Amino acid sequence: MRQSKLFTKTRREVPADEVAKNAQLLIRAGFVHKEMAGVYSYLPLGLRVLTKIENIIREEMDAIGGQEIKMATLHPSENWKKTDGWDGVDVLFKIQSRTDKEYALGQSEEEIVTPIAQEYVTSYKDLPVALYQIGQKYRDELRAKSGIMRGREFGMKDMYSFHETQEDFESFYEIVKKSYFEAYKRCGLVAKVTEASGGSFSEKLSYEFMVLTDAGEDDILYCEECTHCANVEVSKVGEGEACPKCGKGKLKKARASEVGNVFDLGKKYPTSFDFTYKDKEGKEQTPIVGCYGFGTTRLMGVIVEKLADEKGLIWPENVAPFAVHLVALGKGDDDISKTADALYTDLVKAGVEVLYDDRDLRAGEKFAESDLIGIPTRIVVGKDAVATGEFEVVSRATGEVRNIPRKDILSCFLPTASNS
Amino acid sequence: MRQSKLFTKTRREVPADEVAKNAQLLIRAGFVHKEMAGVYSYLPLGLRVLTKIENIIREEMDAIGGQEIKMATLHPSENWKKTDGWDGVDVLFKIQSRTDKEYALGQSEEEIVTPIAQEYVTSYKDLPVALYQIGQKYRDELRAKSGIMRGREFGMKDMYSFHETQEDFESFYEIVKKSYFEAYKRCGLVAKVTEASGGSFSEKLSYEFMVLTDAGEDDILYCEECTHCANVEVSKVGEGEACPKCGKGKLKKARASEVGNVFDLGKKYPTSFDFTYKDKEGKEQTPIVGCYGFGTTRLMGVIVEKLADEKGLIWPENVAPFAVHLVALGKGDDDISKTADALYTDLVKAGVEVLYDDRDLRAGEKFAESDLIGIPTRIVVGKDAVATGEFEVVSRATGEVRNIPRKDILSCFLPTASNS
Repeated sequence: MRQSKLFTKTRREVPADEVAKNAQLLIRAGFVHKEMAGVYSYLPLGLRVLTKIENIIREEMDAIGGQEIKMATLHPSENWKKTDGWDGVDVLFKIQSRTDKEYALGQSEEEIVTPIAQEYVTSYKDLPVALYQIGQKYRDELRAKSGIMRGREFGMKDMYSFHETQEDFESFYEIVKKSYFEAYKRCGLVAKVTEASGGSFSEKLSYEFMVLTDAGEDDILYCEECTHCANVEVSKVGEGEACPKCGKGKLKKARASEVGNVFDLGKKYPTSFDFTYKDKEGKEQTPIVGCYGFGTTRLMGVIVEKLADEKGLIWPENVAPFAVHLVALGKGDDDISKTADALYTDLVKAGVEVLYDDRDLRAGEKFAESDLIGIPTRIVVGKDAVATGEFEVVSRATGEVRNIPRKDILSCFLPTASNS
Repeated sequence: MRQSKLFTKTRREVPADEVAKNAQLLIRAGFVHKEMAGVYSYLPLGLRVLTKIENIIREEMDAIGGQEIKMATLHPSENWKKTDGWDGVDVLFKIQSRTDKEYALGQSEEEIVTPIAQEYVTSYKDLPVALYQIGQKYRDELRAKSGIMRGREFGMKDMYSFHETQEDFESFYEIVKKSYFEAYKRCGLVAKVTEASGGSFSEKLSYEFMVLTDAGEDDILYCEECTHCANVEVSKVGEGEACPKCGKGKLKKARASEVGNVFDLGKKYPTSFDFTYKDKEGKEQTPIVGCYGFGTTRLMGVIVEKLADEKGLIWPENVAPFAVHLVALGKGDDDISKTADALYTDLVKAGVEVLYDDRDLRAGEKFAESDLIGIPTRIVVGKDAVATGEFEVVSRATGEVRNIPRKDILSCFLPTASNS
């Protein structure tokens, strides 16, 4: 895309009403627009990142047999009354219609997915089944100061699985865990999983996926020798003590941000909806349900918090809005324009996603904006490139500069590098 | 996808609470799940159709320079009060938060897109610009009996364009019109465009895109000789009279369904938000705004109403959930299973989208279900196919049967046929 056509612009001033680094940078770089506290719109660059995160988790869920659906977000109050969520869930937005009907806005979808599964699961032969969606959630949060990390409206992938036995749920959980780790890895992050107590809508055990970052809202203890990790609030062992799992490492304390969770919901929701199936012996049984959250907009916020530097955003390759930022220098220099135009055309033809800064601005401004936007690789086309036929290729994350001859440029940016 | 893994099933009974043909068939075929009147969830088959419709209109909007964004659906009441929509729009859902803030649920996005454009459009050099999104809309309808054709929650592509002059808007409207006609064509429909009076949120002229169907909610008069088309309510010329445009044809009356609309919003919204830009002379000017709606879920309903027959759904190739329904007959016949499995693998490898009915059911049941689901092409693998090496290939729309040798099957189902 030509940057001259992109309707957003960057700005130098930090928005006065944002304390979170993620919101400050995303607004300055033109990725999001704040509507009010906890509610953001996603502009072209931001939507490109969000869509890539969504596609990564979609591919991972499809790969383990998840079936994608799109549930309504306007929920009948009856469903929430059946599960006691109508009065019990404090973040539930409630709406009264002109026809005196009451609705809830989806803050989680157990109340919708359970009747859907009930409609089609009548026999043990229909189990297990895992349904997921990617969409908006709404929560009436008292405070919303963490930018896109904790919103009143936010994006989420939520999956719900239905099982005959606890063992079957637990073995499926292990499969989901692997796919979550893979998804975070593809998004440029390393996650740990903790065991923690359940939230308000679960009496049973929950697992939290955490990314270490100073912007996090939780304290965790983790072992450097093995996979053990626990929320400080529930850990029976303190900082510096021996790991209760491997016995070798010592526990280290860190600030972390939750980027996913799994709830073992037991039979609560099927029981509320009288949802049973026939087992092998023809007896009615109640399925066991697991819930798997993955905050898509939140993850975008965590990526910013974790990777951005003092110059601006830094996007991992797989979620970057573009793979290459092609920056043409030299106002009105025809040779430079022609060289840059030709390279742009070639890159696009080769399937590389390019943001092409073809605007009439000073080099310093262009570089500062480019650093702020944070595309992984910058190719500079200035007088030197035209004269020597070599292009300066700069890594946003490391600052590494390489001079690459024109004929070798394309092979450096195979589309697989950005779309894998 | 193997049908044995698909969690939905078809059903014979017509849902008692649905009068609309589209909802009856989509529920029976397992494409949607009704949550309440006017609110549906989209199950795997339905979501596949909806996603294809969304991608078609996305491609068309991108092709004419539209920039995709994703706007919040939880709107601050302040924005709606500025435009007088808070009290003036009767279908607006209103929400009160725990913190005593008031929100509206997006029923259209002028109140959000105008401040976004205002943030970035400061000069005539920034115009024109066209921003669009694809997402959910919410309307507090008094009645909702038309299935997915008129919902309280529904999917829509809405674009908003900002211009310096009325002429510029009008020439852009002509471009959008062409892309809309192309989008409807790709979705298997032929649309006509009418001139009609504006809705409640526009004092100016609007254009409606209509598809002729008996399930429609409007009466239109159209000329069979030229492109003239008008809503009966505003037409100055009656049925049977000479066309006021070409003078040659006579006007014909028909029932039609609105599948898109364009509103010439003038300067109303920018005026409400004090949104001005500097023109060439440095003078502050107010931009002119156009709004372009395209109902994605509604279009899916219209496709059903228009094309379905007494046996069930009939999907046009470009929006079908799958291109091929591969139906294996003969319970537990190893030769048939092997032949069908191998064909399934080859088709999938070739990039063809296949629903593979590998279930243990009688042929009659499988064919009835296949007719109900409405995938464009059915390939039957039975004893005959194993014996002769020729496969029965049936068109759902026409019923045409061809016998095609195994070696020629793949070339019949190039992926371009379903993904173009």
